[in-house]
Amino acid sequence: MQLKKFLPALTAAVVLPGMALAQDAAPGFDEIGPYIMTTLLFCMAGFLVFFMAAGFAMLEGGLVRSKNVTMQMTKNIGLFSIAAIMYWLVGFNTMYPGDFNGFFALGGQTVLDPVGVAAADAALDYASVGSDFFFQLVFVAATASIVSGAVAERIKLWPFLIFVVVLTGFMYPISGSWQWGGGWLSNRGFSDFAGSTVVHSVGGWAALAGAIVLGPRLGKYKDGKVNPMPGSNLALATLGTFILWLGWFGFNGGSQLAMGTVGDVSDVSRIFANTNMAAAAGAVTALILTQMVYGKPDLTMVLNGALAGLVAITAEPLAPTLFGALWIGAIGGVIVVFTVPLLDKFKIDDVVGAIPVHLFAGIWGTIAVVFYGEASLMTQLTGIIAYGVFTFVASLVVWFILKATMGIRVSEEAEVNGLDVEELGMEAYPEFTKG
Amino acid sequence: MQLKKFLPALTAAVVLPGMALAQDAAPGFDEIGPYIMTTLLFCMAGFLVFFMAAGFAMLEGGLVRSKNVTMQMTKNIGLFSIAAIMYWLVGFNTMYPGDFNGFFALGGQTVLDPVGVAAADAALDYASVGSDFFFQLVFVAATASIVSGAVAERIKLWPFLIFVVVLTGFMYPISGSWQWGGGWLSNRGFSDFAGSTVVHSVGGWAALAGAIVLGPRLGKYKDGKVNPMPGSNLALATLGTFILWLGWFGFNGGSQLAMGTVGDVSDVSRIFANTNMAAAAGAVTALILTQMVYGKPDLTMVLNGALAGLVAITAEPLAPTLFGALWIGAIGGVIVVFTVPLLDKFKIDDVVGAIPVHLFAGIWGTIAVVFYGEASLMTQLTGIIAYGVFTFVASLVVWFILKATMGIRVSEEAEVNGLDVEELGMEAYPEFTKG
Amino acid sequence: MQLKKFLPALTAAVVLPGMALAQDAAPGFDEIGPYIMTTLLFCMAGFLVFFMAAGFAMLEGGLVRSKNVTMQMTKNIGLFSIAAIMYWLVGFNTMYPGDFNGFFALGGQTVLDPVGVAAADAALDYASVGSDFFFQLVFVAATASIVSGAVAERIKLWPFLIFVVVLTGFMYPISGSWQWGGGWLSNRGFSDFAGSTVVHSVGGWAALAGAIVLGPRLGKYKDGKVNPMPGSNLALATLGTFILWLGWFGFNGGSQLAMGTVGDVSDVSRIFANTNMAAAAGAVTALILTQMVYGKPDLTMVLNGALAGLVAITAEPLAPTLFGALWIGAIGGVIVVFTVPLLDKFKIDDVVGAIPVHLFAGIWGTIAVVFYGEASLMTQLTGIIAYGVFTFVASLVVWFILKATMGIRVSEEAEVNGLDVEELGMEAYPEFTKG
Repeated sequence: MQLKKFLPALTAAVVLPGMALAQDAAPGFDEIGPYIMTTLLFCMAGFLVFFMAAGFAMLEGGLVRSKNVTMQMTKNIGLFSIAAIMYWLVGFNTMYPGDFNGFFALGGQTVLDPVGVAAADAALDYASVGSDFFFQLVFVAATASIVSGAVAERIKLWPFLIFVVVLTGFMYPISGSWQWGGGWLSNRGFSDFAGSTVVHSVGGWAALAGAIVLGPRLGKYKDGKVNPMPGSNLALATLGTFILWLGWFGFNGGSQLAMGTVGDVSDVSRIFANTNMAAAAGAVTALILTQMVYGKPDLTMVLNGALAGLVAITAEPLAPTLFGALWIGAIGGVIVVFTVPLLDKFKIDDVVGAIPVHLFAGIWGTIAVVFYGEASLMTQLTGIIAYGVFTFVASLVVWFILKATMGIRVSEEAEVNGLDVEELGMEAYPEFTKG
Repeated sequence: MQLKKFLPALTAAVVLPGMALAQDAAPGFDEIGPYIMTTLLFCMAGFLVFFMAAGFAMLEGGLVRSKNVTMQMTKNIGLFSIAAIMYWLVGFNTMYPGDFNGFFALGGQTVLDPVGVAAADAALDYASVGSDFFFQLVFVAATASIVSGAVAERIKLWPFLIFVVVLTGFMYPISGSWQWGGGWLSNRGFSDFAGSTVVHSVGGWAALAGAIVLGPRLGKYKDGKVNPMPGSNLALATLGTFILWLGWFGFNGGSQLAMGTVGDVSDVSRIFANTNMAAAAGAVTALILTQMVYGKPDLTMVLNGALAGLVAITAEPLAPTLFGALWIGAIGGVIVVFTVPLLDKFKIDDVVGAIPVHLFAGIWGTIAVVFYGEASLMTQLTGIIAYGVFTFVASLVVWFILKATMGIRVSEEAEVNGLDVEELGMEAYPEFTKG
Repeated sequence: MQLKKFLPALTAAVVLPGMALAQDAAPGFDEIGPYIMTTLLFCMAGFLVFFMAAGFAMLEGGLVRSKNVTMQMTKNIGLFSIAAIMYWLVGFNTMYPGDFNGFFALGGQTVLDPVGVAAADAALDYASVGSDFFFQLVFVAATASIVSGAVAERIKLWPFLIFVVVLTGFMYPISGSWQWGGGWLSNRGFSDFAGSTVVHSVGGWAALAGAIVLGPRLGKYKDGKVNPMPGSNLALATLGTFILWLGWFGFNGGSQLAMGTVGDVSDVSRIFANTNMAAAAGAVTALILTQMVYGKPDLTMVLNGALAGLVAITAEPLAPTLFGALWIGAIGGVIVVFTVPLLDKFKIDDVVGAIPVHLFAGIWGTIAVVFYGEASLMTQLTGIIAYGVFTFVASLVVWFILKATMGIRVSEEAEVNGLDVEELGMEAYPEFTKG
């Protein structure tokens, strides 16, 4: 039933102060309050995580060269939209199939609660289906955004988007069901609060497979040297980082999955504080380390340091003290500073540093859970390896099939002239770039 | 009474756990909970819709040429500010006059609830006046932002801002009262949940009138050809689209106008999910269609496709299933792809595609309500035509008066050299543009 | 205890509608509702104020020349991160020491509530420690961001960051304790709702000291003339302003410090409406005034006018009517238009106009409180002077020590060539700027 905006105004005119309200017959707040608060948590955290799509787009758009910015924007709004459709079509119910064999159960379309669902028909101990679906959906989009950055500046649009179809409709939901869907890894006691492994490492493995199959950009590794290809807009990249940092409060805070008790809402706030601390520690660490190692602070490292801190705290943002969050985040920053050059040694060309940030720091964060007694090291390694093997192998297969059939890489000419002009016929900054 | 930040800290020190709290005398959450939640909904949705002002500014700033960006920014922060003042001065109470003749009742200044209003004096079945006013105010600003994009790159600042005064203080509130104020259209059963017609089409009609009276930009239509005038910053335009998408969760979700029951909060989340789906479907549709029609995906069409999907779902974001939202949004995307060139055929120069997105997709969305049995086709057409005739005619009159008195178009010289240098003496990107 | 995402899905399957829930034993919403709502307020307001860090970065990054943008980004993400660490290490408990001498009490590390805190152990009349800490922390970062803009384009990175260490760990918390920590100024009845003085003027005084000690940029004041040095990206500056405006709803709204009663949530919404009005009035005033005084509207003045309106309303965003908020904000706009040139007369080079906006409008807002009877003029002046003397003198001392030891200003060569190339070796827009 649709409420009309004028109704309250009219009603307010006739309801006198102190009049008994018709609500008395409905279940009271002691019964429905937690459901309302948790549904609100998912909506709020959901829109924050949604906004991370903009954060990834700005970060990646700022770190590619100006000739490829339109392509990066097209990929990123495209991947979010495809993720939204695939996760509805099959992903959500594949990831949360209810009682299943623990490994795989293909789901069908998501069905929301009916309009104006009655309290008696709602999952009062949890939240509305719509809020839960929305919250989970924006997570899968984050995974796909991670891939987008690593394979930038040389991949064709459509093969990339087809990869996103497979990743968001099948790969992520299947592996996600192992843990968050109540599958075999959760039964083993694997612990990953908000997805250092389930979301970030999965994105990182898919990105790694893509970067390997694609090969590096032309001229990136030449005569034994690594040629820097500076990003075109560091203001935009910084904005993207701040947006991601903002979104992470929803990412981790919403993963408390409840806000209707004193303990739960306090935990949400504790997660906010810890998440912020880990990001700050990652940024400061990268700032100091790049000054020490390179003699100059490196802004892109600082941005990625903050993100690595965020990824690292994601596996366990609740249990640590603020000091614990600080060192978990700081080690994330260390990882970024030392593994970005490492990838270059292997001639793996990750345009935005997505693999160090999301895969390596994600592994670190998942291991750090052990320090808080939430799981054993062996269990955490089992999970890390299981997600790694499955995602990396499945991604390799998909990338190779795409390569063999339609090709995944643009022509050399297109790469040199820029994907924007050659593939899309539209420059991002037609008036800015030097002649 | 002003709370001081230290007070709770001091009080917390003396309140021992388990102590009885002084709140027992106050009305319980069963009575006040819905009011608190709905007021919170309006605040939250309100700040999201507020942020759409930035989204419009970035979208439009990215789609105009760099020589007109400062003007676009000035217009957009100016129009929001004027809308805020006019809606307080006269708009809000004109739009929600209470009992009235159904057509027109000029309101006075908005008066908020007193500070620390007592439960007995508050509209417990609705929300605080402040939250309601704030939420409605950011809607009217959206309407004005739509106009700003269509008439860009050739309009003078002050006549535009005077138009905004009339639009936000009178035109929008008067026509808005017909539906959301409980006027004649709502009595006829017209249905427009969050404003496909009441907000978006109204903005679109005003924009159409402005674009016609202004005429096209110099050189846009020459020798029977349409000359593309590419936007200066597609990264910014993409950011603007993402911000608008984010804001739309507030736009549609907040229009549930209640969040304090199981049914209402579930509906808010259902609206979130549907809104997101329609945007995704609009974007994917435009992506595929431009590939098919033009041989290359067109980013600006994809951005506008997402927005058209959002406009289309706005008339009824609650009743549809996710699949329903998908096709409502997808048709929005189709409309954009085919009507952007159509306007060019009529030599109507809509710089950012505001008319296809907000007017045409808004009409579609309003008609789509019929499929959900919320209203008859005849009723919906009545509403669409009534808003169209009133807004278009009134806008034409205002634009013509402005044209006849102070002039609305900058000189040819100013248009060629750019409004920023000629009208404002300040370039947006003084160091970037090619010599 | 860590909640796992699959648990609710499984549980939902076995909880039949209507089953009695286990929550009955827990304290009811009448007891815990206010705590939950206020904790949520701090989380929500906190993430909004967090995002102001991005707003400051974009505003300042847009107002400096392109050769210094990477430095500005590095400073701003660095300062936020340092503020987060220092405020945890010592700041929060220095600012809120509980019972103390009213002038100074050095605090230790912040300790959060335990995970899953029981209602009996929580400050039920207030909010969780984590939410309170997070909310206060993002305020201190705002103070440091103010300084960053004023001293831009000539300061060295590390001395600036060391200043931030002192400012956020000691200076701000110590002076903050005088008022919000329940110290001597609050005992005198000084009134500053959300920090026109405690936050904004403090930032402004520190910025003023820095700008004086640093001296103006090379060539800014030459042969008795003021040479304009236009910002490189006004679209970004506008975005930054809108983000700050958005964040201010959290800044002022969250400072209500409670959301769990009818009066409190209504007050929060009243603050939203007033805050928005003051910003709008500041912007419109600057728009009209610059047209009148200079013959052309000045976008940077309009942006700063909006911000000055926001700063001005911050000392008392609750008591005024909307009309009151309008004139408080409008006078903020007047102040900006007339004091920006005034600073130039004294050859104080404030790159972004931070001192007029945050210091001068902050003083005005603090005085305006008197009109609402919240405090006497003498008390307000006492507070303004106390914060001014302490912060200005302490800042001067720190800046002079930094100058004498490590130097605070880059070489002339670095200033001419740009801090990005010389100090950081990384341009923000390597492909855009003219050769």
